[in-house]
Amino acid sequence: MMKDDQTAFETALFAHAAAIEVLLRQILDAPLLSGEIARPERLMAAMRHGVLNGGKRLRPFLVMESAALFSADGEPALRIAAALECVHCYSLIHDDLPAMDDDDLRRGQPTVHKAFDEATAILAGDALLTLAFDIVADEATVLPAERRAALVLALARAAGAGGMVGGQTLDLEAERKRPDEAGIIRLQAMKTGALIRFACEAGAIVAGAPAADRERLAEFGSAIGLAFQLADDLLDLTADEKRMGKATKKDAAAGKATLAALNGPDWTREQLHGLIDQAHALLEPYGEQAALLKAAATFVATRNS
Amino acid sequence: MMKDDQTAFETALFAHAAAIEVLLRQILDAPLLSGEIARPERLMAAMRHGVLNGGKRLRPFLVMESAALFSADGEPALRIAAALECVHCYSLIHDDLPAMDDDDLRRGQPTVHKAFDEATAILAGDALLTLAFDIVADEATVLPAERRAALVLALARAAGAGGMVGGQTLDLEAERKRPDEAGIIRLQAMKTGALIRFACEAGAIVAGAPAADRERLAEFGSAIGLAFQLADDLLDLTADEKRMGKATKKDAAAGKATLAALNGPDWTREQLHGLIDQAHALLEPYGEQAALLKAAATFVATRNS
Repeated sequence: MMKDDQTAFETALFAHAAAIEVLLRQILDAPLLSGEIARPERLMAAMRHGVLNGGKRLRPFLVMESAALFSADGEPALRIAAALECVHCYSLIHDDLPAMDDDDLRRGQPTVHKAFDEATAILAGDALLTLAFDIVADEATVLPAERRAALVLALARAAGAGGMVGGQTLDLEAERKRPDEAGIIRLQAMKTGALIRFACEAGAIVAGAPAADRERLAEFGSAIGLAFQLADDLLDLTADEKRMGKATKKDAAAGKATLAALNGPDWTREQLHGLIDQAHALLEPYGEQAALLKAAATFVATRNS
Repeated sequence: MMKDDQTAFETALFAHAAAIEVLLRQILDAPLLSGEIARPERLMAAMRHGVLNGGKRLRPFLVMESAALFSADGEPALRIAAALECVHCYSLIHDDLPAMDDDDLRRGQPTVHKAFDEATAILAGDALLTLAFDIVADEATVLPAERRAALVLALARAAGAGGMVGGQTLDLEAERKRPDEAGIIRLQAMKTGALIRFACEAGAIVAGAPAADRERLAEFGSAIGLAFQLADDLLDLTADEKRMGKATKKDAAAGKATLAALNGPDWTREQLHGLIDQAHALLEPYGEQAALLKAAATFVATRNS
């Protein structure tokens, strides 16, 4: 990627993250909305802890830049991006629970069930998932009802039993069931891919773009979703190699095979370059307007942290 | 309540429950929908276990009969009723978890985390909540997008931090915090009241009824939601009295005060009669069309199981 593009991408990612952080805080600090009775402070504090955590906010960036491709107004895209981040953060809160991955720390901070308790973490996750649909359906997005309903539906499909939550189930089973390569690809397309795909597709829906563009953006999302996971696996693999002086295939040994561990770092890097090319090709029709999204694809596939 | 009305109500409740059961099974057995990648069988089995449990399906009944007040087509109301039941059942699955109420049995069957495992129960609950919004937003409801978006929003408000999930949080805190009467009323209006209120309001939204009717039905829902809880508390209280030969105020002793335990059975019965009158008065404008809903109000307030 050109150095200028990279700088522009990092600047935009940072700026969007700041805007999302402000909006999420505003939503979580809002006075009672019509239909609400009271917001228990402990629950709200747990939700804030899980959401306002200094993440990179990659998914929100993808929503906003996908919408910008079609010169859509930024405010609706920002709200949909915030909703998507609520879904992402709820999934992390539930994933960290003792019954799931049992993690005590996330980004150097205690996980929600550690900072509060398990029951509060379960409920905070539930409330964030619910809040996401509240945000999308609300007239405050300043989108026609048709688009709000389409976004609710696409988000529910990406997050539900046939998407992210289904992928989490497959991931839990993977330790026992040892999926083959096709199984791993499907698992990852669901667990991490579905929300990234939605992020890109959502921009097109927000903008009211034609169905062909919506499909093109969704495909772009699928490509970088897969690249995101491969890059993650590659980082694990090479970190192990560095630490141990050889390929330990730690994930594979732990029962969770990754494509990178199965096929090695060289194959993985080749795949990643192919995915960057594919992602960039999908954005060709949008010319210069797509420079930031192209840089995002390169960043996702080549990041080293 | 007139004996005929009671018979008609029980017949209708049974018929609606059967229709809901068929639709829920159909939805949970459906082939992959657009946007879905795969539905892991273990997850789907856990969702079915939590949903297809032979419940009375009171909330779906309220949606369908509220819609029928305005002569709305039955099919959209049935789908919204199914979505609401998914939300109700997800809340029971999460409520039963060891970190929450830690219940092994529900309706004589193992709870979802007992029949499967905790992780699967958490994910099945998450997937059912997500599915509810999928159902509401889907064009298959045959409702205009404006109504689908309004229903998503009202459901999210009823189920979220300012409604049901907030009420569950308050309920967990009640053991330590000992809320006063106003606190108990608020807790119950959120934990059990909000979804029942939504059920009645949803019928009016499905039918595209004017705002005044929507508000009237919501108030009717609030009245019977409170009656539902008071009747529940009264059953606990009198069961204790019968068993122990005196008012044991078991719930109060366990740290969870109820209005019935605080004020005694006579006061509670008086309140329940007042709520029946209030609920019936709210339905006066609808004349004979409201006979089944009136009978439902009486049933909710006077049930003895």
